[in-house]
Amino acid sequence: MKTVAIIAASGVGKRMKLDGGMSKQMIEIGGHTVIWHTMKAFQDAESVDAVYIATKSDSIEPFKQLARENGFTKIHSIIEGGKERQDSIRNCMDLIEEEIESSGVMPDAILVHDGARPFIQPEEIDEIARISAEHGACVPATKPKDTIKYIGRTPEVFGETLDRSRLLQVQTPQGFTPAKLIEAHRKAASDGVYATDDAALVERYFPEQEIHVYEMGYHNIKITTPEDVPVGEAILAGLKARKSEN
Amino acid sequence: MKTVAIIAASGVGKRMKLDGGMSKQMIEIGGHTVIWHTMKAFQDAESVDAVYIATKSDSIEPFKQLARENGFTKIHSIIEGGKERQDSIRNCMDLIEEEIESSGVMPDAILVHDGARPFIQPEEIDEIARISAEHGACVPATKPKDTIKYIGRTPEVFGETLDRSRLLQVQTPQGFTPAKLIEAHRKAASDGVYATDDAALVERYFPEQEIHVYEMGYHNIKITTPEDVPVGEAILAGLKARKSEN
Repeated sequence: MKTVAIIAASGVGKRMKLDGGMSKQMIEIGGHTVIWHTMKAFQDAESVDAVYIATKSDSIEPFKQLARENGFTKIHSIIEGGKERQDSIRNCMDLIEEEIESSGVMPDAILVHDGARPFIQPEEIDEIARISAEHGACVPATKPKDTIKYIGRTPEVFGETLDRSRLLQVQTPQGFTPAKLIEAHRKAASDGVYATDDAALVERYFPEQEIHVYEMGYHNIKITTPEDVPVGEAILAGLKARKSEN
Repeated sequence: MKTVAIIAASGVGKRMKLDGGMSKQMIEIGGHTVIWHTMKAFQDAESVDAVYIATKSDSIEPFKQLARENGFTKIHSIIEGGKERQDSIRNCMDLIEEEIESSGVMPDAILVHDGARPFIQPEEIDEIARISAEHGACVPATKPKDTIKYIGRTPEVFGETLDRSRLLQVQTPQGFTPAKLIEAHRKAASDGVYATDDAALVERYFPEQEIHVYEMGYHNIKITTPEDVPVGEAILAGLKARKSEN
């Protein structure tokens, strides 16, 4: 199967309180940077042929070097991201569209992943790619552990309680058949619409497209706050222990 | 300030895959059991006068011994929980009501906490108690890090995407002025109503009571799945490092 992947890796880690706008992708967990873990997972995923990464301009060279030194041969392009995450993904998609036109080969699926989710596993990527190609759209999710409520009439008070049994917390990589993802992003750009994730864009422009749930473990966290670093170390140790058991 | 606390600690750790229905409260994190951490936090909270714990019948003696051996003098009663979490809380509330009647002293607030949230800090308990007494109801919450969607027409597909900026993930301890919490539980018992948390019960029977948000850090997790144990170790190490800096 031919799948291409987009990795959004422009986050400057404001919530991480990093010095001088250091990329949160460069934080080390388990002896490797966040982006190393992410690149390696996509390198090792059998379904993936080519990976496009959007990042800050001054991360492009370090990322290229990292890919070269580690034999991450599937990293196809590392380009500058846009203002918002969605713009970065759009930049990668422009490249993918050119590639499709020049090669005449249409991928089975495009996956979009957050660079700051380094604990995704290659076999999970493969499964999401497979379901996306088969059903048109697939998004990983976990059941929320906590009760979820709306904010009320001011941010200091609560509103309505949601029915937790009907909720899912969604993650990435989110996979789609190329035509729909490309068209949804094109329309969003022309309408000036920004959505919370790619699934929300596809939902908006292709409401008839059902988005399939891939039930994910709790390891696929996003490295967002300083607390996440030791938590990430623990998750990584757990994943290694699980692998050595098998 | 006189605050009483209820700790629901009946969970048998089904999702933890523990042997022979071992209580998840007895899992060790950082060299102490989950329930030890929880008891200690309430012992050290200045606002708290008395703690009522509901647990499985065969945990009552071990918990009593733990409290005795560690000088947790505020642990007032350890009783058998009911069928559901809400029944366990109701059992504790019956005792508290008797105490109020016999002593003639009304607490300023009642806090209800999950025993499996061992990383709550004493000063957080105090602050939630204070806001509860002042405003009638206070619940700790964090902003969700992930996008939240509804489950669709079947559990395999997604429904609508929620506006994340309007959502909060709620935790415990949840605090209320005693009259409203007692009355809400009494009405729920007589109506046969079960709610996802105590705040939802108070919302139901006292819709005019605004529930105040206490913005909590991401450390106050519930120990629910095996992955949570190493994550808990990491959180604990982070909390210790933070304390030694101050």
